Formats: sequence, structure tokens, C-alpha cells
Amino acid sequence: MANRVITISRQFGSGGRTVGRMTAMKLGIPCYDQELIQKVAEESGFAERYIQERGEELSSGGWLTAAFTDREYNGLSLQDSLWLAQRNVILDLAKKGPCVIVGRCADFILRDEADCLKAFIHADMKQRAERIVTQYGERAASPEKRLKDKDKRRAAYYQFYTDMRWGAMENYDISLDSGTFGIEKCAEILANLY
Amino acid sequence: MANRVITISRQFGSGGRTVGRMTAMKLGIPCYDQELIQKVAEESGFAERYIQERGEELSSGGWLTAAFTDREYNGLSLQDSLWLAQRNVILDLAKKGPCVIVGRCADFILRDEADCLKAFIHADMKQRAERIVTQYGERAASPEKRLKDKDKRRAAYYQFYTDMRWGAMENYDISLDSGTFGIEKCAEILANLY
Repeated sequence: MANRVITISRQFGSGGRTVGRMTAMKLGIPCYDQELIQKVAEESGFAERYIQERGEELSSGGWLTAAFTDREYNGLSLQDSLWLAQRNVILDLAKKGPCVIVGRCADFILRDEADCLKAFIHADMKQRAERIVTQYGERAASPEKRLKDKDKRRAAYYQFYTDMRWGAMENYDISLDSGTFGIEKCAEILANLY
Repeated sequence: MANRVITISRQFGSGGRTVGRMTAMKLGIPCYDQELIQKVAEESGFAERYIQERGEELSSGGWLTAAFTDREYNGLSLQDSLWLAQRNVILDLAKKGPCVIVGRCADFILRDEADCLKAFIHADMKQRAERIVTQYGERAASPEKRLKDKDKRRAAYYQFYTDMRWGAMENYDISLDSGTFGIEKCAEILANLY
């Protein structure tokens, strides 16, 4: 049987990344997040920073940029090349063994390739705003605007490559409000379901 | 402190009602579903069948019907009178003690009145179609159309009275795919979180 993988999609500032790490720790399996970005960088030649941002968010120009201005000689936009590199790395990691993968449309990429538990972590605006200011060190000026912008870009990227709606509960096995339960409890729930 | 209540919203055919019953049974607290309808009938004079259908679904005419054609002498539409009667019964039940309440916008009605665990149960179209044919005895002809219609009416009713989007994960603490986990496991998860 295919390896058991937990994919974690998350709203920006919901602490989904930490939920992923904690879940993996509880289960004694690897969690791929920053490591995934490093691997994609190694295999594709893209800079880590570029992958970090452009590997799950559409830039301001959105698909128009991707479609018309961002072309390489081989006919693929940079964004599409990154998508393909990232996709290959995710497929490889899932083949290697059980793991937790955070973000990057892994739920969609692995839908037919692994035995996935697809989770989505969300929280209300107020709690996320607090989190990005205190934990991520974001500027305190209008964090709500920043959150909305990040969510919008992630949603647009997801929709563009998967043709499904990001954050629509139908696409996930379980969705959890990290503000209600706390990060630790969310990880416990997921580890128990594994 | 206010009583601890689990509210269960659900897609038609997802088995959310059964999840509610099982959760309540595990916790040894009452589950209000059919009993709620009976209570509303006693207090409002509406027929149970009318309450069953019109207490959480907008009729085909939608809010236009409600707004223009469905008026009583006291200035309230029948639908609005039913909403108020149902709201009062739900508030009363939550005051009486811990319980599980299925559907009927209880999550919204109790948002400031009880210590709520707000759950949403969903499942994919195929599994729900199978369920309504085998379990609810619905006609086998185009169950998908029936499911879409029911979901649409529930969503419209919810939106009309709560001004929020039905089935948007942000409105719930936890959303579960009953097709992935099974009814029994969903009840177990909710009972453990209570």
C-alpha cells in the first residue's frame, strides 16, 4: 500500500506549520516544510526565497503574468517550472516513507499517489493577526490587510493549479480551528487520526 | 458558566444526524433533532412537517416569497414566525443543560449564549447519494440533483437568517468528512473533544 501521508493546508497565521511539526514529532515521522523548499532549490536551481513565496502564492499579476510575461525559452513560465519541480519533489518524498507535508498543494498532488489524511488549519482574523505580529515578527500596522492578501494569493495559486477552491471544506478530511483548540490539541487530534 | 453544547451542521446525506445521536449517546447527554421539531410544534402551533422542511430550508421562492407573499397580520412572515419560535426553543434547550443540537442554525443562535463546540459534517457527492438511497429511502433517480437542491436550500436559509455562509469552515470549530472516517469515528472524535 502507498505510504500514509498527512498534508496540512493552512490559512496564513493559523499556526498550521507548527501543527504539522508537532504532529510529525508525535508520530516519529518527518515533517517537510523548509526541507521541501531546500530540496526544490537543489533540484530546480530556483532560489529558496523565490520558492518560498512563489511556490504557493500567485504574484500580484496572477495568471495573466504567468501566462503572458513570465515565459522561458522552453515555453513554460517560471511559475510553471517551479510548480513542476515542486510537484516532483513532493511525489518523491511521499514515495520515500510516511511523512507530514505542509502547504504547497500537496493534498492535490498526492491525491492518487498516497494514502493521505488531508487537514486544513484555520483561525479567526483576530487570533491570526496577533500571531503574525507576536510570532512571525510581522509589522503591527494593519496585519489584517496582510492576512487577507496572503490568503488571497494562496487561494489563487491553489485554484490556478488544482482547479479546486482553496479552503473549501469538501477538499479536506478534517478542518480545525486552531484558535478554538490550540496548536498542541490540533496536533494531538491529527496524530490520533493517523 | 453556560452549558456545553455541541451543534452539528451537516450536508444532506452526510449522516450528520446519526453522528449527533451517537456523540450524545457516548456523552450521556440528550440529542435534540426530532424532539426539537416537536417542541417547536407545541409552542408555535406549526405542523411538524412544515417545521421539518421550512425550519432550515428556504422554499423555492426564497427570500422573495418570505418578503412579499408570505405575510401574516402581525407583520411577520410565517417563515419569520417559525424562525423566532425555533430560536426560542433552541435557547431554552441550551439553558436546560448540556446537549447536542442538529441543524437549524443552532451554531449561530447559541453563539453568545452557550459554550459551543460547532461541528460540520460533510461527505462527497457519491457517498451521500448512496446514503440517501439506501438509508433514507429516497428515489434512486438522480439523487445528486436532490442533494444539490437540499444543500442549496439549507445554504440559502442559513445565509438569510445569519448573514454568514453555510458550510464555510471559518464558521465551525471542526469539519469532518464522514465518508473518510465513518459515522462512528466522527462521533468518537467529537465526544473526545467535548
